[in-house]
Amino acid sequence: MPTLGQNQYGKAETRVVRIVRDGAVHHIRDLNVSVALSGDMDEVHLSGSNANVLPTDTTKNTVYAFAKEGGIASPEEFGIRLARHFVTGQEAIRTARVRIEEYGWERIATAGAARHSFVRSGQETRTAQVAFDGERWEVISGLMDLTVLNSTDSEFHGFVKDEYTTLPETRDRVLATEVHARWRHGWCDDREPAPDWERIYADARGDLLAAFAETYSLSLQQTLYEMGARVIDNRPAIDEIRLSLPNKHHFLVDLTPFGLKNDNEVYFAADRPYGLIEATVLRDGVRPRIATD
Amino acid sequence: MPTLGQNQYGKAETRVVRIVRDGAVHHIRDLNVSVALSGDMDEVHLSGSNANVLPTDTTKNTVYAFAKEGGIASPEEFGIRLARHFVTGQEAIRTARVRIEEYGWERIATAGAARHSFVRSGQETRTAQVAFDGERWEVISGLMDLTVLNSTDSEFHGFVKDEYTTLPETRDRVLATEVHARWRHGWCDDREPAPDWERIYADARGDLLAAFAETYSLSLQQTLYEMGARVIDNRPAIDEIRLSLPNKHHFLVDLTPFGLKNDNEVYFAADRPYGLIEATVLRDGVRPRIATD
Amino acid sequence: MPTLGQNQYGKAETRVVRIVRDGAVHHIRDLNVSVALSGDMDEVHLSGSNANVLPTDTTKNTVYAFAKEGGIASPEEFGIRLARHFVTGQEAIRTARVRIEEYGWERIATAGAARHSFVRSGQETRTAQVAFDGERWEVISGLMDLTVLNSTDSEFHGFVKDEYTTLPETRDRVLATEVHARWRHGWCDDREPAPDWERIYADARGDLLAAFAETYSLSLQQTLYEMGARVIDNRPAIDEIRLSLPNKHHFLVDLTPFGLKNDNEVYFAADRPYGLIEATVLRDGVRPRIATD
Amino acid sequence: MPTLGQNQYGKAETRVVRIVRDGAVHHIRDLNVSVALSGDMDEVHLSGSNANVLPTDTTKNTVYAFAKEGGIASPEEFGIRLARHFVTGQEAIRTARVRIEEYGWERIATAGAARHSFVRSGQETRTAQVAFDGERWEVISGLMDLTVLNSTDSEFHGFVKDEYTTLPETRDRVLATEVHARWRHGWCDDREPAPDWERIYADARGDLLAAFAETYSLSLQQTLYEMGARVIDNRPAIDEIRLSLPNKHHFLVDLTPFGLKNDNEVYFAADRPYGLIEATVLRDGVRPRIATD
Repeated sequence: MPTLGQNQYGKAETRVVRIVRDGAVHHIRDLNVSVALSGDMDEVHLSGSNANVLPTDTTKNTVYAFAKEGGIASPEEFGIRLARHFVTGQEAIRTARVRIEEYGWERIATAGAARHSFVRSGQETRTAQVAFDGERWEVISGLMDLTVLNSTDSEFHGFVKDEYTTLPETRDRVLATEVHARWRHGWCDDREPAPDWERIYADARGDLLAAFAETYSLSLQQTLYEMGARVIDNRPAIDEIRLSLPNKHHFLVDLTPFGLKNDNEVYFAADRPYGLIEATVLRDGVRPRIATD
Repeated sequence: MPTLGQNQYGKAETRVVRIVRDGAVHHIRDLNVSVALSGDMDEVHLSGSNANVLPTDTTKNTVYAFAKEGGIASPEEFGIRLARHFVTGQEAIRTARVRIEEYGWERIATAGAARHSFVRSGQETRTAQVAFDGERWEVISGLMDLTVLNSTDSEFHGFVKDEYTTLPETRDRVLATEVHARWRHGWCDDREPAPDWERIYADARGDLLAAFAETYSLSLQQTLYEMGARVIDNRPAIDEIRLSLPNKHHFLVDLTPFGLKNDNEVYFAADRPYGLIEATVLRDGVRPRIATD
Repeated sequence: MPTLGQNQYGKAETRVVRIVRDGAVHHIRDLNVSVALSGDMDEVHLSGSNANVLPTDTTKNTVYAFAKEGGIASPEEFGIRLARHFVTGQEAIRTARVRIEEYGWERIATAGAARHSFVRSGQETRTAQVAFDGERWEVISGLMDLTVLNSTDSEFHGFVKDEYTTLPETRDRVLATEVHARWRHGWCDDREPAPDWERIYADARGDLLAAFAETYSLSLQQTLYEMGARVIDNRPAIDEIRLSLPNKHHFLVDLTPFGLKNDNEVYFAADRPYGLIEATVLRDGVRPRIATD
Repeated sequence: MPTLGQNQYGKAETRVVRIVRDGAVHHIRDLNVSVALSGDMDEVHLSGSNANVLPTDTTKNTVYAFAKEGGIASPEEFGIRLARHFVTGQEAIRTARVRIEEYGWERIATAGAARHSFVRSGQETRTAQVAFDGERWEVISGLMDLTVLNSTDSEFHGFVKDEYTTLPETRDRVLATEVHARWRHGWCDDREPAPDWERIYADARGDLLAAFAETYSLSLQQTLYEMGARVIDNRPAIDEIRLSLPNKHHFLVDLTPFGLKNDNEVYFAADRPYGLIEATVLRDGVRPRIATD
């Protein structure tokens, strides 16, 4: 009989919006929560017995109840509370992994004292992944869809040429990418004070933008490493970062057929294909744990 | 033989990024341009003769050449130059319609004097549609995907109840929508000075946000009208505005099974279905011209 | 005071799946229904009074109740029942427009007599739009996302060359498009028997595929006209058809740098930009009514 | 200094369409190819030296040249040729992973002998992932977006109830999912004859559909296991399969407010949230190698 291997289940993409009313000043957190539970689940696969199965509908309800009861201080803190609940609350559940996306909102400035109007920021999506096995925690924070562009200070030359190479070298190109970053916190033990998740998020995001803007780039790999190293150097609470950077090609349009010179002014923004550059940057001596793709 | 009716053709979604280098300070405009041309095109449909057909590839090339030659002061101005070129340049082409989407970029703050790093704003997409028939212009500007939310000051009650009505009345709900707005400028004659497209865009966007935030809402229709009327009242250059507002439902989660009271704090953000509210608001005496859906 | 122009509202994208159990043989219809109602709606916009407003939640409920009560014989028939209900049931509602998308399912062949397993066909989405003003009907059926490709029998030459034209002529190219078609039925009067919507849909779809495959094409416009004319010629119940055909460019890859000849064998399938060809084809003497974009 | 960890790069989503002309009968393969290369790449990250970097543009060119030279017998075979080329052709490159998506096309039936017209099938996307380290091969085939539904023979009861559980038990529900499957072939050594990739794909797809349709389901986990076990039992060349099955909830609509009984006939097809069930099924004694998420 075929063997059952790794398995997990839970409710994905529970959309919860939590409003806090501080008088006329409201606060908002807008999350998309996905729960994956593992444990003693052989029987449900082999015979269909649900005796050990907490329904995914219940994991959804729990998200809503916890949003009410303890609020949402940060995606990381919220994920930790949820993961702890599932692992400690059900005998059959041994590990929980909670993934959260957070969508940012900015206030709309208005004349009066009321502060209950918001516009979605639309920039990056913040992410958090919390895993718990009953003993140790693994918290991986990050962001995705943060699109950045340098209109100069990027070169690409000196590369290998084989029989299929036609790309010309360039000393000045547009470098654009959509940053997908995940960073793992050193914190893994409940008995230690948890990091200030909000602060670290803002700081790491700032590091990534600054390193992207300030790096004179000879290749996207170099920019990637500088971005990762900036975070590792500046944020002692972070041990490891994984970056996935699609090279959003901006091709210089050939205007010579029209008697025009394109002096790095007019570009075609291509969709596909795109270069994809991925790497992990680690604090010296640390063992990598963020999954590669 | 079946008759040929209205027809148009052109290149859609030409992605052009234009960089202006003002010393170390760079500027960026990022457009998606779609051209539709009409005119004396019976033969290409009936016999396949391309004698009157300027290739769509050429309309694409023209976008790039014009981006170089005259720059991109605004999507409206760029669309006007393109439309004029096609209608006046080709005998067989009688009308041109140019649709443009613009994606916003913000500067990344850096230490030095260099200013060539950008992060995509990710908020609304700005739109412009320019139509020209050789004599008169029609310019419709707008925006889409601007997501806004009021966490209070919205009621919904007093509505019709028929045999299929189960919705309870509410005196306090979340009101959220994704604004899709198009406004038509009164300007239509070349010999009159064109409006300041950049300024009007920023102003109309501000009107929409302010009216959304400041309206105590008894229905999304009321909010829609207030948003449209604010633009018409404040911007004499604009004659007409069409708003399409999906009601992005945020349903209050029933927490009573868990012994919890949900005092307008925890919401489920639903995807589908959604209410869809659409209307045109016009300057008094003006004839509507923006297409309804 | 600004004037209120055309306005409409209703619930969009109500997803209803209707199962019919004929013993062990089940049947399935899978629809996405969007309702738009208009009428005496000034007050809700101007003062927020909902006295004339049937909630969009009710239009959703009505979709489900009608799916139960009368079943879903076809999207057109279902839309007609819904539109009639809203216009005749509510004094304030003068017109209703119901748009429906239908997703196709095929049976999974199994050994026993049971017939309750399905796989989504994933090909085109069938569409229907029904409009009713209390007197006359307008039914526009159609399909979208039907992707087709001819690997030969397509040429493109003899076109206009201006100063921005660089496209070479070709005598053999791939022609691919994603068919978006809407056809209007002549039927508009309740007292006349309605067409066989199921039969006409299958027939018109077959016409479009056959005409695409059998036309030796000198331009996509010619192919478009042949497709539309085939439907008008073959289906007397259809008066008008609108086709929107993106030219899904397949560019011949230049393999000469690698010492290879590309004899119409290897293509790059591009995403953007794309040519977009749109036209209406009409029965002789008929006045066009399908909206152009 | 921060350490560089796992890294890879290459061109993603190269869209290649290969036509084979066998007289008037044409054949088509339509792929989306993503290449990821690893090896001696420290310098490009640390100093920006591209001395070891074969440009991603070259990996794209190679895809096109190989499509011409050897054709595309199957995605697996094509991926193997590409991976071998990169690992054996460049000293600095130690491993290559090629991911391929294939889109299916069916012939459009026509009257004459010509066979060059196709309609995209639109059902599942076929996938293949080939990894090579210079010695051993790992080939993981699969499919995604195959949407299936059973309208009966599915129950869900006997599950755990905690304080957040409100879900009622059911003895008859709709079970629908979008199959995402990846199966690993035992073949890993060049010197052994490769499997018949085309045949195994069709067979495994058939196994998945049949097991889904024929399983009387007490939980989606049970259905998942039966689907995986069917493939392992029937296909000796396959050692391991990973299934990811979103539970596409079809909620029975409560029609009692309208005086109607919903006897498993009318469902609301929900978007989010959804249950997500994932597991690996293995041939007895085999070590799992397919990445879990």
